[in-house]
Amino acid sequence: MASIVVLGAGLAGSAFCVPLADQGHEVSLVGTHVDRQIVEALATSGRHPRLGVSLPPAVRPLPHDRLAEALSGDVALVVIAVSTAGVPWAAEQLAAATADRRAPPVLLVTKGLAAAGGEIRVLPALVEDALRARRLEYSGIGGIGGPCLALELAARRDTAAVIAYPDPAVLERLIDLISAPYYHVRPSTDVVGVEACAALKNLVVMAVGAVMGQLEIVGEAANGARMHNAAAAVFSQALGELEHLVRALGGRFETVFGLAGAGDLFVTCQGGRNGRMGRLLGRGLRYREAKAVHMPDDTVEGAELALAVGPTLATWLTSGRIDPDAIPLSRALIDAICHDHPFAIPWSQLHWG
Amino acid sequence: MASIVVLGAGLAGSAFCVPLADQGHEVSLVGTHVDRQIVEALATSGRHPRLGVSLPPAVRPLPHDRLAEALSGDVALVVIAVSTAGVPWAAEQLAAATADRRAPPVLLVTKGLAAAGGEIRVLPALVEDALRARRLEYSGIGGIGGPCLALELAARRDTAAVIAYPDPAVLERLIDLISAPYYHVRPSTDVVGVEACAALKNLVVMAVGAVMGQLEIVGEAANGARMHNAAAAVFSQALGELEHLVRALGGRFETVFGLAGAGDLFVTCQGGRNGRMGRLLGRGLRYREAKAVHMPDDTVEGAELALAVGPTLATWLTSGRIDPDAIPLSRALIDAICHDHPFAIPWSQLHWG
Repeated sequence: MASIVVLGAGLAGSAFCVPLADQGHEVSLVGTHVDRQIVEALATSGRHPRLGVSLPPAVRPLPHDRLAEALSGDVALVVIAVSTAGVPWAAEQLAAATADRRAPPVLLVTKGLAAAGGEIRVLPALVEDALRARRLEYSGIGGIGGPCLALELAARRDTAAVIAYPDPAVLERLIDLISAPYYHVRPSTDVVGVEACAALKNLVVMAVGAVMGQLEIVGEAANGARMHNAAAAVFSQALGELEHLVRALGGRFETVFGLAGAGDLFVTCQGGRNGRMGRLLGRGLRYREAKAVHMPDDTVEGAELALAVGPTLATWLTSGRIDPDAIPLSRALIDAICHDHPFAIPWSQLHWG
Repeated sequence: MASIVVLGAGLAGSAFCVPLADQGHEVSLVGTHVDRQIVEALATSGRHPRLGVSLPPAVRPLPHDRLAEALSGDVALVVIAVSTAGVPWAAEQLAAATADRRAPPVLLVTKGLAAAGGEIRVLPALVEDALRARRLEYSGIGGIGGPCLALELAARRDTAAVIAYPDPAVLERLIDLISAPYYHVRPSTDVVGVEACAALKNLVVMAVGAVMGQLEIVGEAANGARMHNAAAAVFSQALGELEHLVRALGGRFETVFGLAGAGDLFVTCQGGRNGRMGRLLGRGLRYREAKAVHMPDDTVEGAELALAVGPTLATWLTSGRIDPDAIPLSRALIDAICHDHPFAIPWSQLHWG
């Protein structure tokens, strides 16, 4: 039995508490400012209003100003599950609240990439910055990848995940800590690859969604034909572009063709907000109109990612750091989101082998 | 404009005629014995009864005893699109009817693998046997892979395909011949890889179907959770096992992660007979009962493949030619089909990275 702190009480962080508690760990689920109502509901009834389940009694809901208290004991693992934009704040909170000189292992459930000074970094690097600024020691910062719809994990449905951590010995302990009978976790030391897959799949999946949007416009053919062939071709191209982008960021190709890449891209094709935005683009809407009219209150992670890293990627394309011909789908999506261009599948530029 | 012969007037062969005719080629569509009614319907009305479309006027339907006539001119390409079991017959017909000493390029649309004498071969090798037995010259035998539902190609919906041929110069000509505005074809010289992907994806996809079958039994969770995470994890494992098997047969890994592997596996997950058999297995039925009661008149290609190559694969596992730990899903499926064992996802043995 270990003590684990999860920072962020939204869908992903809260669902992650279920296998941890089922394995006998004591879990402090620390909400952020935006999680106030969730933490209150959990404290009152034990029920998570968005997950639709009661969390196990071993999960202790806490407001964010009690993070230091949660971190005060012998903590085996800290999980960061805030919004992408909240990661620097969470990292700073964690660094400030770490009583010891040595921070516990940290895993990010939050997904995204950060661009600054012409470089693109994975989110664990931002946490490292905060710990180093406070001169804290740490064994590494990792992340969790793979296909995981939170409601399914919370309902204890079989789910597989990749736990990425740079230190193999710590990684082995984390795997033991996190595994549950229905939560099948596998180790990886490719933190950059797992994190880059998790972020970038939200971008490229919009192209698969766009095929479905096009189908909504043109409808079934007279013989009942839909557009599964086109969707599958775009899925394959998306996977190839994911590999190109992930390797450009320093990740490994085998990560892309495993659970964190192909598996996560597959589940992301089954629905969700990124696919929905893709459908709107495929129906011929421009991004700004689609967002403003149809998804004004939704965070579309793939679009946020395009806005965050699109300008830096553009300089990489110009300088030849990435071959433009290698990522035609991604370029078309970034143009659609960053410059409000119309989106269409660039069939003549696709290049699967 | 070229003259092309397609042998086999079922769904796949007939659909393939549409882009060929649209590009201005003269196509002879030669039916087999089982295609008699189709050929008659095409000759009478031009309409293909199973595809639900009228074939273009440039497609000339012929009965099988007129194959020699079809092959008598300057034929640029022969396409074999018969059943898996019919390939030796088709190869012999082709060899016997080839007037010239040199056979035209041949592409197989038919998918499958053949086991004999402890070895597993792709179908183009069987055609080579027949041509060599008649001492005919040929530039190579290839195949067509990638995600292609025939009704969609026949309806001129965007479809991407890999044309695999051993001779790069001939391959280039074939690409020019076959490309159409909605039929996006790409070259590969990895005939074994493309053919092995096309055959083996029908086996491994049954495991993804089995997750859906399990969902039919256990139903949605109280919070609405289904089993998309499990399906995606199994998809990822299936892709990894496909890679292991294809490489063991001599194919290239990049073929598996492209259109012929990942793309075709993706489209096969959207439905079809293999997925349906997988669903039945996932619902707890044994293979023999599932086949006899629920799919007595259907050819389940993945099951036929397991029956054809399962015994040989078993000897490869025993001898260490394939590592049993590398293909737990495939082993469980082969046991279910060849030995009527119950099938369950072997979660503890899966190993995505």
